Amino acid sequence: MNNPQLNKNGELQHLLTTEGLPAPILRAILDRAASFVSTAEGNEIKKVPLLHGKAVFNIFFENSTRTRTTFEIAAKRLSADVVNLNIGSSSTSKGETLLDTVDNLCAMHADMFVVRHSQSGAAHLIARHVAPEIHVINAGDGRHAHPTQALLDMFTIRHYKKEFHNLRVAIVGDILHSRVARSQIHALSTLGVPEIRVIAPKTLLPTLVEHLGVQVYHDMEEGLRDVDVVMMLRLQNERMQGGLLPSAQEYFKYYGLTQDKLALAKPDAIVMHPGPMNRGVEIDSSVADGSHSVILPQVTFGIAVRMAVMSMLAGAK
Amino acid sequence: MNNPQLNKNGELQHLLTTEGLPAPILRAILDRAASFVSTAEGNEIKKVPLLHGKAVFNIFFENSTRTRTTFEIAAKRLSADVVNLNIGSSSTSKGETLLDTVDNLCAMHADMFVVRHSQSGAAHLIARHVAPEIHVINAGDGRHAHPTQALLDMFTIRHYKKEFHNLRVAIVGDILHSRVARSQIHALSTLGVPEIRVIAPKTLLPTLVEHLGVQVYHDMEEGLRDVDVVMMLRLQNERMQGGLLPSAQEYFKYYGLTQDKLALAKPDAIVMHPGPMNRGVEIDSSVADGSHSVILPQVTFGIAVRMAVMSMLAGAK
Amino acid sequence: MNNPQLNKNGELQHLLTTEGLPAPILRAILDRAASFVSTAEGNEIKKVPLLHGKAVFNIFFENSTRTRTTFEIAAKRLSADVVNLNIGSSSTSKGETLLDTVDNLCAMHADMFVVRHSQSGAAHLIARHVAPEIHVINAGDGRHAHPTQALLDMFTIRHYKKEFHNLRVAIVGDILHSRVARSQIHALSTLGVPEIRVIAPKTLLPTLVEHLGVQVYHDMEEGLRDVDVVMMLRLQNERMQGGLLPSAQEYFKYYGLTQDKLALAKPDAIVMHPGPMNRGVEIDSSVADGSHSVILPQVTFGIAVRMAVMSMLAGAK
Repeated sequence: MNNPQLNKNGELQHLLTTEGLPAPILRAILDRAASFVSTAEGNEIKKVPLLHGKAVFNIFFENSTRTRTTFEIAAKRLSADVVNLNIGSSSTSKGETLLDTVDNLCAMHADMFVVRHSQSGAAHLIARHVAPEIHVINAGDGRHAHPTQALLDMFTIRHYKKEFHNLRVAIVGDILHSRVARSQIHALSTLGVPEIRVIAPKTLLPTLVEHLGVQVYHDMEEGLRDVDVVMMLRLQNERMQGGLLPSAQEYFKYYGLTQDKLALAKPDAIVMHPGPMNRGVEIDSSVADGSHSVILPQVTFGIAVRMAVMSMLAGAK
Repeated sequence: MNNPQLNKNGELQHLLTTEGLPAPILRAILDRAASFVSTAEGNEIKKVPLLHGKAVFNIFFENSTRTRTTFEIAAKRLSADVVNLNIGSSSTSKGETLLDTVDNLCAMHADMFVVRHSQSGAAHLIARHVAPEIHVINAGDGRHAHPTQALLDMFTIRHYKKEFHNLRVAIVGDILHSRVARSQIHALSTLGVPEIRVIAPKTLLPTLVEHLGVQVYHDMEEGLRDVDVVMMLRLQNERMQGGLLPSAQEYFKYYGLTQDKLALAKPDAIVMHPGPMNRGVEIDSSVADGSHSVILPQVTFGIAVRMAVMSMLAGAK
Repeated sequence: MNNPQLNKNGELQHLLTTEGLPAPILRAILDRAASFVSTAEGNEIKKVPLLHGKAVFNIFFENSTRTRTTFEIAAKRLSADVVNLNIGSSSTSKGETLLDTVDNLCAMHADMFVVRHSQSGAAHLIARHVAPEIHVINAGDGRHAHPTQALLDMFTIRHYKKEFHNLRVAIVGDILHSRVARSQIHALSTLGVPEIRVIAPKTLLPTLVEHLGVQVYHDMEEGLRDVDVVMMLRLQNERMQGGLLPSAQEYFKYYGLTQDKLALAKPDAIVMHPGPMNRGVEIDSSVADGSHSVILPQVTFGIAVRMAVMSMLAGAK
């Protein structure tokens, strides 16, 4: 079995990437998440004892209060004990290797690691290293993957659109540097979305992006035409300084989502964003706060999806 | 109804300031706090399940380990799940607006925000913005208000003096920059204290302070004469550098509370301080540790008062 | 009674140092820790309610994510409420004294303090100051003591060697600056280890170290001959810069633990290290990961030992 995320029975052992994640498992995660979003309004999430007595370690080698908080909340809703480790200030700065740090935490009886790291592949490295009763969730590694973000995006799309097989989806923005975009494209493909478009300037597209099975647009107005779902990406400020872009104003003019551009999409199109938003850079405030926006439901669904993943992993033993 | 702290039934919806807080609500908070201070010694506080399953977010835009800890302890005694967010290191530094950050936390199903911010009005802004099932506690905003500090001070005064209507109270120190002093004056007035004095050098008094219904003294020996309660304020070190004061030694000479000056107050006067103390600057050690000092009971009562406020808000739905 | 760790009934009141800790108490801690390491594999630790409703404050004046985490995990396994305070960023920086900070935390109803401080004696100072119902655990003070580390080391030795009275133990490395070494030597002596060796260059040995009842070796090959237990110490990088050592390479040549040197010890010798390890400085990777190494079991036992100490203290009232 060469899929490092699955155990020998084909069950989810770690969540590292949406690439190669089988459709039945992907759908099982979404179904279980739906069970945590229980009330009629679709926004009440109750505390359950599924991870009582389990220790979840949030090990963040890269600071991200928002992402860490969503995992912390999800774990506490599952009644786990949560320990937050900002490893930047910890033993690695004392010359300890990453795997020695991990071994030590395992010896403290961690049941699950939620890992954020600036290096692509860090979560995989840890997953390959730990004992079979320990589970790893990738909370973002370099430019590689951010699978729980992609899963909550899939949950959101299914919530509003019901099916995937008839959708036209556009991903807009800095595809090149985005682990979110990669994870989204893999998940959308697996779930059977027939048309995935990426819209970006050439400087923000990976070479050979077409090999991922997407259609490339450099003109946003063309790219948005008749889409069901618009998935915006965050523009990192450092891109502006790196010479890849002329200015935030220029970027907004060509690739910022405005009411006018959105009008080219289907009348019932939904607008998504992984946050945090740069209002006036990649998205206009009137769109972010408008009737097509499902940006805040994404956050709510993110808690449910993370609860689903955590409870599937901790129950897989 | 233009009091943003009360819902349309006149119940406490948020705790933002003691200004305009009706006396019955103020007394209800003190009564409920008393129920958490249960034993004969008056210092045992038991864990209760009143906020079980609720998520309390401590969002501190301004660092204050001590204040954050008191709210964290209070919330945990109520069995809430507590998430601490140091927003200085979070998304706001990534260009996200304050209200976007708040919206995101709401979408994660926060039930209560405890907010500390350097800008006056931040907690009000958040309270006006959030949905009705979410509650906001102001843990200090700029120079404006620090209502839980004032409430624990009222609890302390009532504990030792039983009644408010016959008291002479002096507030001493840097009134100008003190959100604590503002909140104390409003609460003391509402509870019917007939004589509130402020004692400070002219440079540390707001213009028109008399409009708050207080008597102004520049001479501490005059101001302390026959008072029942002495409420000291912390002198921020930066005031010394700002040219408002000559030196710590001079300040102590004229406005530091010594045994000699305290002897001018009533024989059973109590001495209070919100902490952290600058011993030898605004207060002499012999007074801080002396028989009139109720500074440490203030801290204990602070936990009970914060539990009272949190449980009233979360039960008000 | 002049042992500040024991109450007047001779029971454990604080854990400050292994120096002077009576053998029956030391063994009682190890026995209780064994009860937390329950399964056949000796590595499952269950959650128990022994400290439910108790508040444990980790007050770390010196940053140590690893040590703080072990205490946090231990306290949460005992169902305590845990509050982490990084006091470096707190009120002490606002001019508050150490004991004022402690008094404030006591007034918030701390039941237990876990204290790490760069000054020797800090935990003792706090222990002498607090009320009898409050317990202090020294999590490392200056060069003085680190008793829970020494206790987990004793637990590990007993786990693998069953008895102490027939052992030859070598402690290797920077004895001079090591609070761990001091605490180990006292514990080993009390438990009846007949031969304790220290192996170090002269510059890393305290003067009059022989007075602790140890045999001094400067030659590692001599010192390791026929020992049952090798306890390595971490070499702090700053020692290299301080002129006490020529270089990491030279140190490793003479005092690094390699397979060749370890072959001089008994065939069933165990190798210990308090972590975090400097691979290639004080220990070779092949030894750290080899069959004699019990370095990761030490970490596991560390949780059990800390649970044992915490539950004995909180039950001692």
